[in-house]
Amino acid sequence: MAGKEPLVITGKDEMRRWSRSARAKGKTIGLVPTMGYLHEGHLSLIQESHNHADLTVVSIYVNPGQFSPNEDLSTYPSDFLGDVEKLKSVPGGVDVVFHPRNLYEYGQNDGMKQGENGLKRKEGKVVSCLENSGAGHETWIRVERLEKGLCGKSRPVFFRGVATIVTKLFNIVEPDVAVFGKKDYQQWKIIERMVRDLDFGIRVIGGDLVRDPDGLAKSSRNVHLSPEERVKALSISKSLFNAKLAAETGKVNCKELRDSVIRAIHEAGGKVDYAEIVDQESLETLEEIKRPVVFCVAALFGNIRLLDNMEINV
Amino acid sequence: MAGKEPLVITGKDEMRRWSRSARAKGKTIGLVPTMGYLHEGHLSLIQESHNHADLTVVSIYVNPGQFSPNEDLSTYPSDFLGDVEKLKSVPGGVDVVFHPRNLYEYGQNDGMKQGENGLKRKEGKVVSCLENSGAGHETWIRVERLEKGLCGKSRPVFFRGVATIVTKLFNIVEPDVAVFGKKDYQQWKIIERMVRDLDFGIRVIGGDLVRDPDGLAKSSRNVHLSPEERVKALSISKSLFNAKLAAETGKVNCKELRDSVIRAIHEAGGKVDYAEIVDQESLETLEEIKRPVVFCVAALFGNIRLLDNMEINV
Repeated sequence: MAGKEPLVITGKDEMRRWSRSARAKGKTIGLVPTMGYLHEGHLSLIQESHNHADLTVVSIYVNPGQFSPNEDLSTYPSDFLGDVEKLKSVPGGVDVVFHPRNLYEYGQNDGMKQGENGLKRKEGKVVSCLENSGAGHETWIRVERLEKGLCGKSRPVFFRGVATIVTKLFNIVEPDVAVFGKKDYQQWKIIERMVRDLDFGIRVIGGDLVRDPDGLAKSSRNVHLSPEERVKALSISKSLFNAKLAAETGKVNCKELRDSVIRAIHEAGGKVDYAEIVDQESLETLEEIKRPVVFCVAALFGNIRLLDNMEINV
Repeated sequence: MAGKEPLVITGKDEMRRWSRSARAKGKTIGLVPTMGYLHEGHLSLIQESHNHADLTVVSIYVNPGQFSPNEDLSTYPSDFLGDVEKLKSVPGGVDVVFHPRNLYEYGQNDGMKQGENGLKRKEGKVVSCLENSGAGHETWIRVERLEKGLCGKSRPVFFRGVATIVTKLFNIVEPDVAVFGKKDYQQWKIIERMVRDLDFGIRVIGGDLVRDPDGLAKSSRNVHLSPEERVKALSISKSLFNAKLAAETGKVNCKELRDSVIRAIHEAGGKVDYAEIVDQESLETLEEIKRPVVFCVAALFGNIRLLDNMEINV
C-alpha cells in the first residue's frame, strides 16, 4: 500500500495559509512537532492526533535554539526522505509535513551574519541557545518553575528553547490540538503549563511512551548506541520496571527506590544524570510515594544521553 | 449622537468565540490593548485600528504582572463606565470591549490562595511580577536585548509583564492587527520584535503620540498631577521640542542635547530617570545623531512618573 502522500511545506506564510484555509472549511488541525528521524513513538503520536483532529500536520525541524554549544546539534540524526516514507505508512497518513529551513532567520534586516554565532548547520545559518548581537532573534519564553528540575539542571537553557520553538510552531500552524510524547515527560508538562499560562487556544495531548520489544524507550538517539551499549542501556527500563513493581507492592520510600535504579545503571556501566521520583504535575521531588508520581531517569551510555520514565499511580 | 454601543465581554472563551466567528465570516480584527482610563491618545489608536481592520476590540485590563510591589498598581486610575462612554464617542465606535477580571487565574487547581502573593486588588486575586509558589502562573516572555535599556533599567521586570500579557491577549483575541502607542516607544518596539521572533500572524501598528494643546504628552497618570506639577511637567515636552529643533538645524552631539533636556527638567523641579537618544530600531544609545533616532525621556514630578519622546529623522 503506497499510503497518502503528504504535502510538504517549507515556508511559514504558506503553512499559515494552508491552516487558515482548512479552518475556514470547518476542519480541525492536529500538530505533532518533531525533530525528525521518526520512529514508532512519533508514529503513535500521529495516530493520537487522528483521534482528536480532522487533519494532521507533522513538523520536522531540528531546533538549534534548544541545544547548548557543547551539545549534539551537529550530530543529531536526520533522514527527511525516510521520514516521509514512514509517514506514508501510518494508517490515515498525514496531511502536511512542515519542514522549514531556519525558523530564526527574519530576512535582510535580522542582523545575523554568516558564522556570527559560531554555530552553523550545513543547511544554513542558525542561532544557538545563546544571545547573539545585532537584530537577531532575542525573544525567549521561560516556564520558570517547571524548567528548573530534572533535565533543566544539566541543560539550563534547553526548555527555554523548547518553549520558544513550540510557540513559534503554534503561531505558524495555528492548530486546535498538539500532541507531545510522554517520553519527554518534563517537556510535555512544560508545554501544558505554557499553553495554560499564555492562553493558547490549543489542547495539549500527551501520547504514551513507546518501547522496543526488549523494553528500551524509543528515541532518535538510539541509533548512535553500539550493539553493546544498547544491551547495557536496558538496565534503565529494567530497573525502572522493578522499582514501579516494588512501589505498587508497598515500597514507598523514594530514596530506596532511587538507589536501586542508580545502582543498576552504574553496574551496567552507565552514568546517571538524574533518577528522580516527582509529583506528576508540579514535578517536585518527593520522599515518599503517597500520590501519583512519575519516576524520571536520564543516563548516559557512551556519549548518548537517554531518557526514560514511568508513571506510578498508587 | 449616542454612538455605537460596544459589546462588553469578560470571559476568555467568549472572547475567542466572538473572534473566531467574526473571522469565519471573513472579517479582520484589530486589537487595541489598554489599561483603561482612556484619553484622546487611546481614542486615536482606535481610529488607527479602523484604518486597518473591519472590526475593533479594545481590551481594558490593568495588568498586575507588569508592576513591581513598590509601584503604583493599587493607585492606577480606573473608570470603566466612563471609558465605555468615551468609546461610544469615537467615530465608528468599537465592536467589543474585552474587560477580563483576572487573566492570571486558572480555576480550582491554580494553587493561588487568596493573599498568597502579598499583592491584591479589590476586584480579586492577582499575581505580581514576582514568582509565587504552587501551581500559579509561571510562564514569562523576555525580549532580552530591547527590554534592558531605558525604562528597563529602573523597571527590570516591567517588559516581561508587558510581553506576557500582550501574548495572552493575542492568544485570546486572535486579532489580525494590533495597535500600540508610540508614546510607549520601547514597549511598541518590544512588541514588534516579539511578534517577529515568535511568528505571530499579527501586524503591529504604531500610533502617534498625542499631546494636550500645551504640549504635555497624554497619559492616564496625568490625572494625579497637581495643577502646579502639571505646569512644571511641561518642561519635558518643551525641552524635547527645543532639542529636536537644535538637532534638525545641525546640533548632533547627543551629550549636549541630553544635558539641555536634563537641565531644563531639573530646573523645573523634576527628577530625571533617563534622557537618552537612541537608534529607532535597536534602541542603542548614540553619541552623535547620524541616522533616525528617538529622544526618550522618563521623569518624575512629585511621585508621578511621566514618559515622553520625539523621533528625530535627520
